[in-house]
Amino acid sequence: MNPIYQARIDKVLSAMEGLGLEQMLVSDPDSIWYLTGYYVFPFERLLVLCLRRDGKHKLFLNRMFPEAPSCWEQVWYTDTDDAVSILAGHLEPDKPTGIDKEWTARFLLPLMAHHPESRCILASSCVDSARSCKDEAERDLMRVASAINDKVMERAAAYIQEGMTEKAAADFIVSQYAAEGCEALAFQPIVSFGAHAADPHHEPDQTPLRAGDCIVMDIGGRKDRYCSDMTRTFFCKSAPPEYAAIHDTVREANELAESMIKPGVPLKDLDRAAREHIEKAGYGEYFTHRLGHFIGQTEHEQGDVSGTTPLIAAPGMIFSIEPGVYLPGKFGVRIEDLVLVTEDGCEILNHVDKHWKTIG
Amino acid sequence: MNPIYQARIDKVLSAMEGLGLEQMLVSDPDSIWYLTGYYVFPFERLLVLCLRRDGKHKLFLNRMFPEAPSCWEQVWYTDTDDAVSILAGHLEPDKPTGIDKEWTARFLLPLMAHHPESRCILASSCVDSARSCKDEAERDLMRVASAINDKVMERAAAYIQEGMTEKAAADFIVSQYAAEGCEALAFQPIVSFGAHAADPHHEPDQTPLRAGDCIVMDIGGRKDRYCSDMTRTFFCKSAPPEYAAIHDTVREANELAESMIKPGVPLKDLDRAAREHIEKAGYGEYFTHRLGHFIGQTEHEQGDVSGTTPLIAAPGMIFSIEPGVYLPGKFGVRIEDLVLVTEDGCEILNHVDKHWKTIG
Repeated sequence: MNPIYQARIDKVLSAMEGLGLEQMLVSDPDSIWYLTGYYVFPFERLLVLCLRRDGKHKLFLNRMFPEAPSCWEQVWYTDTDDAVSILAGHLEPDKPTGIDKEWTARFLLPLMAHHPESRCILASSCVDSARSCKDEAERDLMRVASAINDKVMERAAAYIQEGMTEKAAADFIVSQYAAEGCEALAFQPIVSFGAHAADPHHEPDQTPLRAGDCIVMDIGGRKDRYCSDMTRTFFCKSAPPEYAAIHDTVREANELAESMIKPGVPLKDLDRAAREHIEKAGYGEYFTHRLGHFIGQTEHEQGDVSGTTPLIAAPGMIFSIEPGVYLPGKFGVRIEDLVLVTEDGCEILNHVDKHWKTIG
Repeated sequence: MNPIYQARIDKVLSAMEGLGLEQMLVSDPDSIWYLTGYYVFPFERLLVLCLRRDGKHKLFLNRMFPEAPSCWEQVWYTDTDDAVSILAGHLEPDKPTGIDKEWTARFLLPLMAHHPESRCILASSCVDSARSCKDEAERDLMRVASAINDKVMERAAAYIQEGMTEKAAADFIVSQYAAEGCEALAFQPIVSFGAHAADPHHEPDQTPLRAGDCIVMDIGGRKDRYCSDMTRTFFCKSAPPEYAAIHDTVREANELAESMIKPGVPLKDLDRAAREHIEKAGYGEYFTHRLGHFIGQTEHEQGDVSGTTPLIAAPGMIFSIEPGVYLPGKFGVRIEDLVLVTEDGCEILNHVDKHWKTIG
């Protein structure tokens, strides 16, 4: 087996040992790809990687799926088989079975009916914690994805003109990810002009850009399975002084949090520091969301940077730092980078200048 | 409450009664929309509609979600709450709880830990069976979506030229759904030239169209939440006689199955009739998939038209009829319509001519 996958599996097996689990079912297709290099989206069909501490791992696959690498023991079923029964026959019923968080009731409840005496235990953290600390191969992929995001943001800032609609700007951004070889968006681009920026999740519409508007762009693409995610806030033609000052405050909060990141730092301290900086400027009640989220194969991975998270920064973690201020009906600003925790500090994966400037 | 939603809920409550269930948790966002008119995609957050036979239904919502219609009792939680505990507190622990097939282990296993003495039962069929028989409002939406699909297919057939790549044809098709006001694709278009058509799920690539190639287009858009899905097979410039004859056979199989559809007919009889027609022509082993699938808010809904399905045609069912023949390395043909079972027969929702013809 490729040593990259072996190392990842070893991390999961070690976490299973910590929970006293001999066997675990992994169903999230992204996790299965992470552990095996094999990817298929199974739609309504059963796809399971059964990990065992004794090393006798097995993939359960439908005949409609493509072949998996031959280094994996494979158990094939067809659409007319009872796939859950087949899977149940391969489990040790006298031992608890770990389950990842994505497995659906469609399979889980029938499996539990097969082995009513055995316990199914939510053990998603065994895989999710492994995925939260990126290895070297993943760090490189995240750097490439974020370098593309930098390019797309710079191009979008140069492209946007007064009078252009949010939708037209978003369409341009989408086209740029395709031109850069991204296989997909990480998420639908958020482009918000003026008062629309007060909604952190605004969907681009036919509203045209007017002079004096702020312009929030929260964008990301997916390249070779890994996602980027960055936000910058500009102004059209001129920046109202009050809003420019808020922009400075939010940028300082972003930079303050980023300056604190190194292994051992509780992630809730980052949230608190950024929040206190915004509170001191008088806008605390308008910073309405957590400071950041983990990211990788999906835009939001397990793990967040919030006031209540128990997580401690560790090498390989990649998450967003994205403070914002939202004045309902008037204005919004958010400034977001992705950061990688390194062995002795952090590497900021985005490089587009964060100071406010006018465009359009 | 809008009588459309009340009628849909009544169908589900009646099915719950059949299973002896007093309470059921619906988590599929499409099902929640179907029953309430409220749609939100919750990502990793809990979204549940708790249906109760006594009519005291409740929606469980995160504060980040938009407001739901006021006719619904709403229980709101925040990101710092234990949403599953809140939900558990509203259930009757001495009664079994129905669960739909989409609920994930992330929530289901903690809920079961809260009420270890109570049973969770896979009861997805209560909702899925209701959704499989479309009401008048849904039938109209499916007709509109399929009328758009007819237009897009005709335009694509007129657009494709010798030398054009599969990818360019697929991009054109995507643009036409957008131009027709579709909010999304039902699925990525399949455009397969020549030997590529032997793979029913081929992904369009840079292969150019050559004279004599077959052209399989399996396409669908999503309009006002409802999906279309149709396949036609053309030839570029000229049709090799053997392949043209297979095309006739597949079309006849399609028409034969469609001619049999009326309430009371076992759907497996449709599969058998189409399959036998293709077998008689000597190509039985090359018809490698089921005859059809149900469709609605998603491309593949619960229910299929196969040799093993127990389903019986009933008014309001909408499914595909899509026989195909696939000669590995050489050629493929598939002809697919969506059909609606009416009170006394069926309505074919697609109207693009099915006979083989040359284009390009």
